Amino acid sequence: MNEPPLVTRDDITAAAQRIDAHVRTTPIIRMETGAFGIQAALVLKLESLQHTGSFKVRGAFNRMLSADVPPAGVIAASGGNHGVAVAYAAQRLGHVSEIFVPRTAASVKVERLRRYGARVTQVGERYADALLASQARARETGALEVHAFDQPEVVAGQGTLGREFQAQAPEVETLLVAVGGGGLIAGVASWTASEVRVVSVEPEAAPTLHAALQAGRPTTVPVAGVAVDALGASRVGEIAFAVARRHIERAVLVDDEAILAARRVLWDELRIATEPSGAAAFSALLSGAYRPREGERVGVVICGGNADPRTLA
Amino acid sequence: MNEPPLVTRDDITAAAQRIDAHVRTTPIIRMETGAFGIQAALVLKLESLQHTGSFKVRGAFNRMLSADVPPAGVIAASGGNHGVAVAYAAQRLGHVSEIFVPRTAASVKVERLRRYGARVTQVGERYADALLASQARARETGALEVHAFDQPEVVAGQGTLGREFQAQAPEVETLLVAVGGGGLIAGVASWTASEVRVVSVEPEAAPTLHAALQAGRPTTVPVAGVAVDALGASRVGEIAFAVARRHIERAVLVDDEAILAARRVLWDELRIATEPSGAAAFSALLSGAYRPREGERVGVVICGGNADPRTLA
Ligand SMILES: Cc1ncc(COP(=O)(O)O)c(C=O)c1O
Ligand SMILES: Cc1ncc(COP(=O)(O)O)c(C=O)c1O
Repeated sequence: MNEPPLVTRDDITAAAQRIDAHVRTTPIIRMETGAFGIQAALVLKLESLQHTGSFKVRGAFNRMLSADVPPAGVIAASGGNHGVAVAYAAQRLGHVSEIFVPRTAASVKVERLRRYGARVTQVGERYADALLASQARARETGALEVHAFDQPEVVAGQGTLGREFQAQAPEVETLLVAVGGGGLIAGVASWTASEVRVVSVEPEAAPTLHAALQAGRPTTVPVAGVAVDALGASRVGEIAFAVARRHIERAVLVDDEAILAARRVLWDELRIATEPSGAAAFSALLSGAYRPREGERVGVVICGGNADPRTLA
Repeated sequence: MNEPPLVTRDDITAAAQRIDAHVRTTPIIRMETGAFGIQAALVLKLESLQHTGSFKVRGAFNRMLSADVPPAGVIAASGGNHGVAVAYAAQRLGHVSEIFVPRTAASVKVERLRRYGARVTQVGERYADALLASQARARETGALEVHAFDQPEVVAGQGTLGREFQAQAPEVETLLVAVGGGGLIAGVASWTASEVRVVSVEPEAAPTLHAALQAGRPTTVPVAGVAVDALGASRVGEIAFAVARRHIERAVLVDDEAILAARRVLWDELRIATEPSGAAAFSALLSGAYRPREGERVGVVICGGNADPRTLA
């Protein structure tokens, strides 16, 4: 296996400049001491307020703005936030987009992709099927592929979240980040490197990074659970794995119940709407999967807000 | 009529210090140029993320922390956010609380008051009835009254929002603030005084400040509409009226449709959950009731998030 390309701080700074006009600086909120019964100084980054409701637009814009996009446009596979982000970014930049989704994708998601002007193809049962079909199609059309997590430009784009968070809350010592394919955490940890302790949080039902760190290489694991639509990559990216080995301090697991409880607390106490994956990192604190020492300055990325609000009631 | 007591900047700074340990510094978000089709530099203050979901805790804490609260505790009239804020603040400070609500108050609100330990009395059909009953009761028990808007300590407490917002976004030239009884806008305008152009926003269906400014004194008007539970004081406070005459640049009206449309945009584009009153100030921009000049730096207070999430779907 070749070593995957590294993403540097310079790459991330360049990405931030590239995408600056297109993404929001999302707010942070510093919680009061002892909030939620946690004896840490907690800062939440509300990336759920980003365009399309997740950080995924950062990577999508950076990938598109780093390349010459051909007339065939861009292509991606995703039944979730990545697909919506690619369709949105393509529309804003005047490119056509083609999104491959598994046939199991919710019709409301497909509708949303179409609203952003995407051509949607439904194929196979799982993400992996849609990905393979999208890659075959890209070879035919020449469209620019935008991977959901395992491309340097995508990782650098997600890394702008880490850069932005550190500028907003330079005091943070420890960062909790949810992991699916690992694009977000790879970007963030490539930025913070050894300055900040990065802790990965995954559902017990989708422990891809965890399994990879144990096996010493990315391995395919069965995935399920309440956050599977966002954190359910069945295998972590090569880039993420390489970064994780260098820069991720600890990998913790949370169960579905903890994720849903955290989601409820974010709504009840803060009126922050999250999807399950968006509450996963926070759930590591609430459930005790990650126990900060007293006064530890902990940053938490609230990474997605695409909830059906009826499920918050 | 005696001149009502003024609230000074020093009062507001003192209030901010007093309540600091008990309220959140709520985040702001700077919108991208041209967001929502509005050619202004827009900054939203997400006070909907405050404890209990509205700014009302600021005034409640300041009133309680400015007085010797007797063993009989505190008393207030409100079927809405003020009541919840008073019950919450009393519980945090270890006081008993008694809240008078009209018999028409939603049972879920009454439940919420009880959860914060309040003794709840349901009386009369309207807020005014509950207020009169609470005042009679206060004379009996000696409990400290916490008015929903027309007390200097309450106004100074709400003013801390203006102080905080200005510290976070000193560039803001114009501030849009929703008005019910006027405690919030009076506090904010007492802070910003002549430095910032303060624009009041009221529902057409509950134009209390508007009517008062036209009549030259607070007058009672019929109130209704989608935001009536929060912006439906039937008469603006004496303090608010006095401040408004000095420091409020313009009073604009919005209709219910505009309020609901603004609420939808805040959810769809930003995943910010608001109750109708929380979206009212923003609706003045979206509907054109307030038209900023190009590039005008406009701040908007998103003042309440106590929505039933099902109504966002
Ligand atoms: C809201 C949300 N959070 C986290 C993730 C995981 O991101 P990554 O695959 O980069 O680890 C995703 C991926 O779709 C997501 O949508
Ligand atoms: C969310 C919200 N916004 C605005 C207001 C109006 O505040 P004021 O009565 O101080 O004008 C209220 C009052 O209850 C409220 O609850």
